[in-house]
Amino acid sequence: MQRLVSYEYQGLTQWGVLTSDASGIYPSGALEETYFIPLADTLGEFIEMGQEGLLNLAKMMEDNQRDKAVEPLLLSDEVCLTLPFHPRRNILCVGKNYRAHVREFEQNSQAEIPAEPIFFTKAVTSVIGPGDSVNTWPDTTSQVDYEGELAVIIGKQGRDIAPEEASSYIYGYTIINDVTARDLQKKHSQWFKGKSLDTFCPMGPSVMVGGWPSPMTVLTKVNGHLRQEGNTEDLIFPVAKLISVLSAGMTLLPGDVIATGTPEGVGMGMNPPQ
Amino acid sequence: MQRLVSYEYQGLTQWGVLTSDASGIYPSGALEETYFIPLADTLGEFIEMGQEGLLNLAKMMEDNQRDKAVEPLLLSDEVCLTLPFHPRRNILCVGKNYRAHVREFEQNSQAEIPAEPIFFTKAVTSVIGPGDSVNTWPDTTSQVDYEGELAVIIGKQGRDIAPEEASSYIYGYTIINDVTARDLQKKHSQWFKGKSLDTFCPMGPSVMVGGWPSPMTVLTKVNGHLRQEGNTEDLIFPVAKLISVLSAGMTLLPGDVIATGTPEGVGMGMNPPQ
Repeated sequence: MQRLVSYEYQGLTQWGVLTSDASGIYPSGALEETYFIPLADTLGEFIEMGQEGLLNLAKMMEDNQRDKAVEPLLLSDEVCLTLPFHPRRNILCVGKNYRAHVREFEQNSQAEIPAEPIFFTKAVTSVIGPGDSVNTWPDTTSQVDYEGELAVIIGKQGRDIAPEEASSYIYGYTIINDVTARDLQKKHSQWFKGKSLDTFCPMGPSVMVGGWPSPMTVLTKVNGHLRQEGNTEDLIFPVAKLISVLSAGMTLLPGDVIATGTPEGVGMGMNPPQ
Repeated sequence: MQRLVSYEYQGLTQWGVLTSDASGIYPSGALEETYFIPLADTLGEFIEMGQEGLLNLAKMMEDNQRDKAVEPLLLSDEVCLTLPFHPRRNILCVGKNYRAHVREFEQNSQAEIPAEPIFFTKAVTSVIGPGDSVNTWPDTTSQVDYEGELAVIIGKQGRDIAPEEASSYIYGYTIINDVTARDLQKKHSQWFKGKSLDTFCPMGPSVMVGGWPSPMTVLTKVNGHLRQEGNTEDLIFPVAKLISVLSAGMTLLPGDVIATGTPEGVGMGMNPPQ
């Protein structure tokens, strides 16, 4: 149960393990040098190593808890968390996966619940770090909205994955903001364009690995105000089902990110929209 | 006006320029060694070099036409054309971009023409070579259909590209078969899943570069029978418009492939469907 993060320090992007109080980072480089087990240069490469890397890392963290050979680097103005990793492929997304959000999206309290998951993608060029600014592209859209979501990171290659096998393909979790231009989403009929403008996918900072308690809660705050609160128990299609349906006849790769859908409380659902 | 191709020969994937009668290939490696100008190891890397690479190549081909120093390698059982390059990103696709196809797709002769282009993507894992077999995934779908399409390859990075600038971002053209599981396309509401099964995007073999005459015609044959014949003059949204709208607020990268939509004549449009 750890949080892996990337950070900038002395002009370099590095990665490591967040301390349990989130005040600092055990740098992967210092762990490697101390315990003589190779990790990887970037968190993206480490994720592609799958379970083997995680087992090595867990062993080192256990040793370090005993001998305290590696000290955490404290977060500061000089040590900033960044995008955890650059996905290689488009972000895989699921639409209308919470009942209450279906109703607000359709602006109809009787709106039908999807019988099958709705999959679309966000361009990989939309991905930015958690502290980076979202550009609202005023020449292209006038209706930019937020959608806070839990995202699953795939840890090994697979196809035709049965729901009961799905958990062995999950590397960990992160959060994304599935920023959406509502006008473009509607105007172009398919959602890709309205979902894919540059900067429209803030992600991270943490990659949560190893047995976090479930169900999980996702909170979205706008300027400090709580707007969305979703619980994975309320997903219409739970994570195992999403992995199973998505992988039918279609290969998933290590490092693929599947955003699981947004709960109620997006800006377009408010009266007036906010 | 050349056709760039990749091919397998002696167990290696190489690339070169197809002879004008399509009987052989001038290998890029032999051109490099003869004229001392570095090209690239793969056609994908060469495309990412953009116009500079094309200018070097044109110069070499011109010299070679004079001095005949490089002989073409003839196509044979040992020299087979393959996928021209592995796209790094999802194939960018346009739906319903020919009037007659809109009517057959909607099964309605009065069907409305889209007011804006419909963009979706195909997973990069769906891409295969032109001679590779399409898997019909009988456990996942029972309605696999073909869609022959002209595809544009982007040659330089750009965003907010004006229609009148679009041609300078076009590297060349190829063809793809936007293979589609009609049942999944419908069932999942957004089209990504039904378009993205493994093997659902045969592409190539040629990358056509340098001033081919337009308009272009795309023919689709099924077992030798002509099923689709589309002309780029009939595109509802022409290529320059597609590039302009797609790049609004969204960065296009060298090597991106934009499939321009399929003409009338897909299997689902026939009575009975074929």
